[in-house]
Formats: sequence, C-alpha cells, structure tokens
Amino acid sequence: MLVALAGGVGAARFLRGLVRVVPPEDVTVVVNTADDDVFWGLAVSPDLDTVTYTLAGTEHPEQGWGLAGETFRVIDGLARYGVDPWFRLGDRDLATHLYRTSRLADGATLTEVTTEIAAAWGVAPRIVPMSDDRVATRVTVGRDDGREETLAMQEWFVRERAASTVVAVDFEGAAESRPAPGVLDAIAAADTIVVCPSNPVISIGPLLAVPGIRDAMARRRDRVVGVSPIIAGAPVKGPADRLMGPLGIEVSCVGVARAYADFCGTLVIDSGDAAHAPALEAAGVRAVVADTLMTDARVAAALARHALDAVA
Amino acid sequence: MLVALAGGVGAARFLRGLVRVVPPEDVTVVVNTADDDVFWGLAVSPDLDTVTYTLAGTEHPEQGWGLAGETFRVIDGLARYGVDPWFRLGDRDLATHLYRTSRLADGATLTEVTTEIAAAWGVAPRIVPMSDDRVATRVTVGRDDGREETLAMQEWFVRERAASTVVAVDFEGAAESRPAPGVLDAIAAADTIVVCPSNPVISIGPLLAVPGIRDAMARRRDRVVGVSPIIAGAPVKGPADRLMGPLGIEVSCVGVARAYADFCGTLVIDSGDAAHAPALEAAGVRAVVADTLMTDARVAAALARHALDAVA
Repeated sequence: MLVALAGGVGAARFLRGLVRVVPPEDVTVVVNTADDDVFWGLAVSPDLDTVTYTLAGTEHPEQGWGLAGETFRVIDGLARYGVDPWFRLGDRDLATHLYRTSRLADGATLTEVTTEIAAAWGVAPRIVPMSDDRVATRVTVGRDDGREETLAMQEWFVRERAASTVVAVDFEGAAESRPAPGVLDAIAAADTIVVCPSNPVISIGPLLAVPGIRDAMARRRDRVVGVSPIIAGAPVKGPADRLMGPLGIEVSCVGVARAYADFCGTLVIDSGDAAHAPALEAAGVRAVVADTLMTDARVAAALARHALDAVA
Repeated sequence: MLVALAGGVGAARFLRGLVRVVPPEDVTVVVNTADDDVFWGLAVSPDLDTVTYTLAGTEHPEQGWGLAGETFRVIDGLARYGVDPWFRLGDRDLATHLYRTSRLADGATLTEVTTEIAAAWGVAPRIVPMSDDRVATRVTVGRDDGREETLAMQEWFVRERAASTVVAVDFEGAAESRPAPGVLDAIAAADTIVVCPSNPVISIGPLLAVPGIRDAMARRRDRVVGVSPIIAGAPVKGPADRLMGPLGIEVSCVGVARAYADFCGTLVIDSGDAAHAPALEAAGVRAVVADTLMTDARVAAALARHALDAVA
C-alpha cells in the first residue's frame, strides 16, 4: 500500500505517472484542502478536483485547473451582474461544485463527497481530503504603501496572480482540525509514503499543519520519499519561490530537504541539481537524483519508479 | 402609479402588455416567492426570474421558465454524479442564481438582490418579492396506496409534472412573514392594483397569505382589478385546475371571482365566459369581458388596457 501527500498540478502529474507503475487501487492520495473556498455559494476544492480530473485523464492540458474542452457560459453570464469573475469556473466543472455543495448541505462529509466524485470519474486510487474540517490558507501580503493585507489563498494566487509580496502564511483552523478518517492509519500502514512535488508552503504545508499528520509521517521517516518541486532554484510552475523565500526557506532542493528533514528520509532531486546532493546528506536527507521535469506521463512514471525504488 | 400582483408565466405575459400601455417606471410588480427553493446550494426564485426575463424580452418563448437560447452544460454535467436533474436550470440562468446566492450570503435582502438583477437586465418596472422572509408552498398529495405525502412546490410541479392528486396546500412560514419593504405602501398609494392572470392557489395565494397584503388590497377593493386565469373552465397553462378543485374553488372565472371577492372589485373574464358575468355580479364582483388569451404582446396590451379602463 502506498500513500501520497498531494497538492494540485505538480502532484497530479506525478500521480498520473505513479499509477502506471503501481496498481492504482493500492494508492491513497491525501490532498490539501486549505485552498478550498466558497465562490458564489459553491464549495470549490481546487486541489481535490485537479487530482481527480488528472487521474481521470480529463484535466485541462495546460491551465492547471478545470476540465479539458470547457465552456464558460455561466461565469461569462455573471458579467451582466457587474461581477468580475476572476475565478473562472468552467460549466462542466461547476457541475462538480454544485454536486459537492448540495451533498455537503445534506450533511455528507468532504471525505464522502470526494469518494463519490472520484467514483463518478472512474478514478481507482482512493482520494481523501486532508481533513473534513475547514482549514483555510491565509496569505498576508505587503502593499506598496507599507500596509499589510490578509487574503484568501485564491485571492492572492488567482486574483492577484501571486504577484503581491508575501509577508506571512497562516492555515486558519488547522490547529483545531482533525485528519480525515483513515489518513493516520493509512500513513502508519503504508509500505511507502510519497510527498508529491507540490508547493512546500501552501500545498504540503497545510497537510503537515493538521495535527497528527506530521508526527505520523515522522514515525515512518525511512519509508517517506519526497520529490523536490524545485529544479535549479525555481519551481516548475506556480508560486513556490514567492512563498519559500519570504518564509525563510531557501528556494532550492536543499531548502525543501531541510523543511522536510524531520519526516522525510529521502528526497528525489533533479539531475540538474545533482551538485546539491552533499548538502542534502548534510541535512540528514538521502538524495536520489532523477529527471524530475514531468514533460509527459512516461517521464512521470519513470520518476515515480525512481522514488519508489529509493525507499524499497 | 400601478401595482401588479404576479406569479410566473401568465403574469409575465400580461405585464409585457401592461408596460406597452403605461409608463413602465410607474409599475411596481409584487411577485410570489413561495415557489423559491434551493437547488444544489443555489437560491432559485422562479417567478421573480420569469417576470424579470420576460420584461427584459429574453425569456424562453415556449417553456415558461429560463432564458431564450439556453445551453445546459452544467445540468447535463450533473448526470455524471447520478443526479437526476429534473429541475433543468440553463447555464445563463445559473449565473443569475449564483449571483443571487452570493449576494444573499453577503447579507443582502431578496428585495435588494431583485432590484439589482432587474437593473442588470434593464427592466424599468420595479420588481419586488412579496417578502424577504422565507415562505414555502407545500403541496400534500395523495398516493395510489392511500398514503399522503407533502412535497415542495417544484417537486410536485416539475418533478411530478403536477400529476399527483392534491389534498392540501400550505404556505410554510407565511404566518410569520412580513411584506417586503414598500409593498403595503405601494398598494395603499396605487391608482390601480392589478391581480395578474396567475394561478389563484399557488401564485396569488401565497401573496395573500403574507400578513397585511390581503387587508391592504381589501381597503383598495374598488381600485383592484383581476384578470381571470381560467378560460372556459380551464387554465391556459399550468396546473390551476388540479389545485382549485381539491381546495374547493370552482374551476371557472366564477370560482376565481368568489375567491377574490373580498379584495377585488372587478374581474376581467374571457369573452368566451361572458355567460358567467351574472354569476360574478351575484358574488359582488363586477365582470368585464375581454379577450384574455394572450397570444402575443399586442393582445396582452389590449387586455391590460381593458383592465385599467375598468377601474379608471
């Protein structure tokens, strides 16, 4: 059995490779939900949906969210009401949010709804939210005039295009949250635990902030393998560099290794970063070198194979 | 100034004629909201939207709800989740519900949101809900096995296609509801008050069940003119006959006249029903005969002219 800790796009692409090298039904993916928000009354879970859609092979090929071949009739219709639809949910994607919202209103847990949605898309791995409780990433940014402002994750990431300078990141509600049912047991029982190549601050960070998860990982440290999302000092995609620096994490695979050192015994780093291997070892993390730029599912599968072999 | 009490399709078609014969900005339309419901987390107000869309000239020409030229990408997407989308909301229509839901969640009243939506569609008449409080029509039906079951209005009307036998109709929450701001003042100040050709039981009935509205109408009885929705013993469209009979209201313009007699001094009946005029007069209601089948906006305008002249 295998557990993967996942954020959004990078994780989803890795998982697409992973399920080519292990039986998909043996995989439990624990997904960040601190990016979740409510838009126009609808419960939106960006990372859960990105993972689900990607494993279903129906994800939008470039944009990193939503479905392939989408239309935007509803969102475009909002313009009539003077709404700036900066969070552009597609029409077919909205069906997912309508379903999730109505099931949650009926009293279902996010875990239950996530299972139902994954089943509807024929996704074999078990996809679970990190928690059924509300945890919300809040990004505090500094404005040009010296003021600070705290934004919801999607406000910073999507509306402000991650351009504002980050001063602090908080995971509201994390301290009172509980891991979703089965998460700690899955980590305890897994042969291998993979930390997907996701943003260490806002994708993996919230998972680790749910009480119990980091400790459960630390107890399995020798079976935990991470994949660095940082290649040659920069994230492949996304704003990790704009978050890690301000929070005192070096923007390199070394910074990732140090941030994960207490619970992650092995880190896969890119072949272009091989020179950093000694620094990882100095931080107590075993370095495994591989091609980590997942240009397609075959490369992702090879990367997954490398990661699994590293802790086999 | 003119006040119109309105339900859905029949009222909307009448109002489209009315605004051809009076300045639209002089008209206040008070609309039934007891058909409102929440679908997949979204606040849907069928009659408010039908009136707004029709006055904007963007209503679907045949189906009696929604917008012309609609697509159903979102609703069709729900099928994946095993949801039977018997309440088929179109994509552009969904933008309205998203907007309404999000504004209500922000703390706006239904009156405020309704004004905003009407303005967005360039609708000149003032459209107001009967109440900002929740009033919900509940239809109790008799099943073949003798059991009774209470349904939400749309469950009976749309899902069961108004086919189940009606035993009782209740307006949940009506007793505790208050008229929306300005409704009673508008009735008191109006030169003319029109009861649109809407279902007397489930469209006009809820309006009259909001404490204060029926009394305010009764005080203006001589200035109140109704238009019978029943022609030759049958509704033009909709299930009025399946509701009036079981509730003891004769399915005829005479039944309508008797039901309205305490607050409506004049009723416009169809020329085909002219023989019923003496029965109306016997019920204390003045009968005015006109062509009430609104085949197009010109006929509706002539009907509106007749109605206004009757109490001028």
